[in-house]
Amino acid sequence: MEIRRACLLLIAFVFSYSSSADSEPVWRWECISGTCQKTRITNETRDSALSLPACQLFCGEYGRLWPQPTKEYYTGNYLLHLNLNSIDLNYPQDKKSTALANLAFRRFAQQLRGLVPSGKSTRGGRSLVVNAQVEDPDIIRLTYATDESYILKINELSDGRVNASITSNTFFGARHALETLSQLIIYDDIRNELQIVRDASISDSPVYPHRGLLLDTARNFIPIDAIKRSIDGMAASKMNIFHWHITDSHSFPFVSKSRPELTRLGAYSSSQVYTEDDVRDLIEYARVRGVKVLPEFDAPAHVGEGWQDTGYVACLNAQPWMDYCVEPPCGQFDPTKDGLYDVLEDIYGDMVDLFEPDVFHMGGDEVSNSCWNSTESIVSWMSTEKSWGRTATDFVKLWDYFQSKALERLYRKTSSNIPIIMWTSGLTESENVTAYLPNTTYIIQVWTTAFDLQIIELLQRGYRLILSNYDALYLDCGFGGWVQGGNNWCSPYKGWDVVYSNSPALIAGTYKEQVLGSEGALWTEQVDGASVDGRIWPRLAALAERLWAEPSTGWKAAEERMLIHRERLIGMGIAAEALQPQWCLQNEGDCPAPGRALESAAVKRV
Amino acid sequence: MEIRRACLLLIAFVFSYSSSADSEPVWRWECISGTCQKTRITNETRDSALSLPACQLFCGEYGRLWPQPTKEYYTGNYLLHLNLNSIDLNYPQDKKSTALANLAFRRFAQQLRGLVPSGKSTRGGRSLVVNAQVEDPDIIRLTYATDESYILKINELSDGRVNASITSNTFFGARHALETLSQLIIYDDIRNELQIVRDASISDSPVYPHRGLLLDTARNFIPIDAIKRSIDGMAASKMNIFHWHITDSHSFPFVSKSRPELTRLGAYSSSQVYTEDDVRDLIEYARVRGVKVLPEFDAPAHVGEGWQDTGYVACLNAQPWMDYCVEPPCGQFDPTKDGLYDVLEDIYGDMVDLFEPDVFHMGGDEVSNSCWNSTESIVSWMSTEKSWGRTATDFVKLWDYFQSKALERLYRKTSSNIPIIMWTSGLTESENVTAYLPNTTYIIQVWTTAFDLQIIELLQRGYRLILSNYDALYLDCGFGGWVQGGNNWCSPYKGWDVVYSNSPALIAGTYKEQVLGSEGALWTEQVDGASVDGRIWPRLAALAERLWAEPSTGWKAAEERMLIHRERLIGMGIAAEALQPQWCLQNEGDCPAPGRALESAAVKRV
Repeated sequence: MEIRRACLLLIAFVFSYSSSADSEPVWRWECISGTCQKTRITNETRDSALSLPACQLFCGEYGRLWPQPTKEYYTGNYLLHLNLNSIDLNYPQDKKSTALANLAFRRFAQQLRGLVPSGKSTRGGRSLVVNAQVEDPDIIRLTYATDESYILKINELSDGRVNASITSNTFFGARHALETLSQLIIYDDIRNELQIVRDASISDSPVYPHRGLLLDTARNFIPIDAIKRSIDGMAASKMNIFHWHITDSHSFPFVSKSRPELTRLGAYSSSQVYTEDDVRDLIEYARVRGVKVLPEFDAPAHVGEGWQDTGYVACLNAQPWMDYCVEPPCGQFDPTKDGLYDVLEDIYGDMVDLFEPDVFHMGGDEVSNSCWNSTESIVSWMSTEKSWGRTATDFVKLWDYFQSKALERLYRKTSSNIPIIMWTSGLTESENVTAYLPNTTYIIQVWTTAFDLQIIELLQRGYRLILSNYDALYLDCGFGGWVQGGNNWCSPYKGWDVVYSNSPALIAGTYKEQVLGSEGALWTEQVDGASVDGRIWPRLAALAERLWAEPSTGWKAAEERMLIHRERLIGMGIAAEALQPQWCLQNEGDCPAPGRALESAAVKRV
Repeated sequence: MEIRRACLLLIAFVFSYSSSADSEPVWRWECISGTCQKTRITNETRDSALSLPACQLFCGEYGRLWPQPTKEYYTGNYLLHLNLNSIDLNYPQDKKSTALANLAFRRFAQQLRGLVPSGKSTRGGRSLVVNAQVEDPDIIRLTYATDESYILKINELSDGRVNASITSNTFFGARHALETLSQLIIYDDIRNELQIVRDASISDSPVYPHRGLLLDTARNFIPIDAIKRSIDGMAASKMNIFHWHITDSHSFPFVSKSRPELTRLGAYSSSQVYTEDDVRDLIEYARVRGVKVLPEFDAPAHVGEGWQDTGYVACLNAQPWMDYCVEPPCGQFDPTKDGLYDVLEDIYGDMVDLFEPDVFHMGGDEVSNSCWNSTESIVSWMSTEKSWGRTATDFVKLWDYFQSKALERLYRKTSSNIPIIMWTSGLTESENVTAYLPNTTYIIQVWTTAFDLQIIELLQRGYRLILSNYDALYLDCGFGGWVQGGNNWCSPYKGWDVVYSNSPALIAGTYKEQVLGSEGALWTEQVDGASVDGRIWPRLAALAERLWAEPSTGWKAAEERMLIHRERLIGMGIAAEALQPQWCLQNEGDCPAPGRALESAAVKRV
């Protein structure tokens, strides 16, 4: 790397300098010892002055890229002036992914336009042609088996155009390549122009196939536009799973085509709903961005509003709520009601039609025995129909009764017996899990801490896991408590360094291959559309790099790039939180965090 | 109150019912035992059904008002359909405040239009005429002596119009009355119309004259639009001081007319600045909203960027920074440089021209002896010019030397020797304060905890205080640490209940009269325009009620109204954080926080 840094002095600017007097730039940046240092522009240095983004491109091990690439990363030391109005894509024609690729390319062009500050316009420069070679351009569904790798090469053609060649097995890999390419293009505010790295060779693929965001849209309603913004951010960070916790006890915003009355009663208002069109549109929006929408219908707990007329929900708004559930308004299915399963089958059917899932999330967390135990019709059924007692073991049987029947109804609607994800719970504990949740069917999503022994027990029993351990990946922690004293239950707030340090490889050790990946989880008791962007971003991007690259280095080595990526998200219209004063972005390496330099342990390999 | 609640059943709706089939309302609300309870609409109840806001108006001790009024609060039990297009103001003509009042009324009308959901339009209804009687309509500058009280009465005229009569001593009181009036008007989503309380009599005035927000716009730049949004929120909450921490070590965004080079070097970019026009516009924007802009020019520490060419700042970006200051990039004036005071006089002059302050904030926090002690020119001057040593006492003398000269230069620019606010610091400790900061000149702003003994010592010595104790009023606490391990230094996050419970009367005891009020403080190391709304709101509104009313009840009694006020802020375009699931707003009293019911102690009077 040192040679490359030294070469920076040789960067050839093929463009000419121009400026307007009223806002003539004062500062330029030099790459010194791996950080960009702010320096005054003088008459002597004006022509060769590097803008901050130009310096960042070549300074530091991975330039401005987020997440860091995993196989090969080479960029030369030259920039070319890029013509925003002459950008073309060659992609296999008349394939199933052709339309997706065209939309992804349109987004790519929009991202480039977004680099130019409002009120400015750029002129001239080189044409860019993107040539994509895609091995199987008919793959348009993302699964755990989908090859997301890509190779990206940039070079100058003899006619002066810039050539970006992409090689990938699928559209999804090609799309990631476009994302990387966009990160190799900058706006130079000294010269008011876009510039592109002239020479690059990057080979890249993700470590984990499941790189997700869980968003709860039931505690509070999240408008579709806000969800789309987060999917934009996921795309920019090469994440690929949007886990949609679409209903809960608090509200039922999902419009089930066959059971619309649930939404009519259960939505917060008639405008706070997700219609079939909304959902279809979102799924396609996400697909263009390399993101799959994974639906969760949480049951048998976490139901309530909307079901008032059915008689299938017990304990809804039972008071005092802490006797019946973990937060108001409680609500839990009554598994003894046969009619319940007909409704579930209808809802599952609607969801399967819309989401076409290759894996389905059935929830299954926080089932309350005390709710069932306090419901006369249930305990009477347990006694008379089943001759069960009322011990914890009996309620596990009741839960299994529900889960088996619900799964059977789901499978009536899917074309095959797709894998099911469920949360860690009493059912996933070692004495129950193999009996009730076979590892051939079930994938377990862990929400307890990274130190929960259940993790290793599940791995030893052969389960595939998705990690959302709350001690690092719950994005809602650290605010005021709303159902208990002081701050909320999973406080403190998880800083981006905590998220970044949460290594599945470290947690799973020798069972690493059984970890599909992780999800940052945003439960929305205390978030709605007004602040959802900032709660998710830029912290979710820290998870993105952890999952894409599983880097052997810690957050400290990623800090400069994280600040850059946060600005990138802002430029895309995502209201990501600020992590530091802008001064730290402009003065790389001068805001060290001495007390935090001990953070390396978390990323040691086991 | 019980009689009034019972009377709710008698509420007469003078309007007729209409609905569109596609989104016909499902729910109505009934006031039962002081909370609005969600109930199904039936054919029998459709005509008399209360919307949630209508129920809230009459249910609970203070209806939908925030902050709660302090003297008299009576509203009848009738609502009238209001015609949004027939609203008029009678205000004393050709007075100094006439133009302000007209702008305030225009804003009032905008607020009413903002109640109607986008895509809807309302028709018909009663005309509203607002008659304002203002004792001294030539007062247009807010001081600690300004009378902000008002009386608001609403009644129906014989011609069917609604009359709102406002009596106040000043424009500022009348403006508050308009704010209250706007809170007595609701949008009824069952009937798609605006409604106003038919009979009301409210007498109101604030307990504390200083009800503020401190916003730092130097650690990160905050766009003017974002500042304006917060001033809107302050107006809606009857707060009155916007304390503008406009410069710091990190950047110098304030454009000083006489010293523009400071901004040219010191702003984050040429577009991240506050021009003279920006500042003038903001001051008038705030005045219309009853808010005074109080400038702070923090010195002798908290300076840096911008001053590079002057030679007047020591230690800028000294490394390792923790040896020289509390956070990068350090920076502190060199008090020995005579030319410094000429520059300060120019800046003060520019600020005095713009802000026309009746009180000025000179900062004065976190002065670092080690910075001065490590600067050769300073220690040499102390020794040769002053024959001082280098003890802590000597550096206090040096600081006093600076402060005295700086104050002298400020007073050259003000028309009188206005009061000066300074932060608690080494200079305000008991052994120094009376010697260096006479209580006839200085008001002390407290940033340490509510339990700091300095508070009572300062009160005993006759100082007037403004409380911004960080353990309750620092709005930036609780996020990831950026210069130390774990979370940031003043973690945890201060929930709105903590803010609400921070009673000046409790803290000051018998010296309560010396407390001018409080400020919520937002330091912006980890906030910028993207998330500034949510960091401030709705928590600042909790402070607003504490300062306006100093209620003897705690946050629990205010919880339902707080949720309502948060929705009000959202309706004004302020991205206030969500506090609870929307379910709690729609199901009043069903989200109790059992563990937090012990919170009453904080509001006991001493």
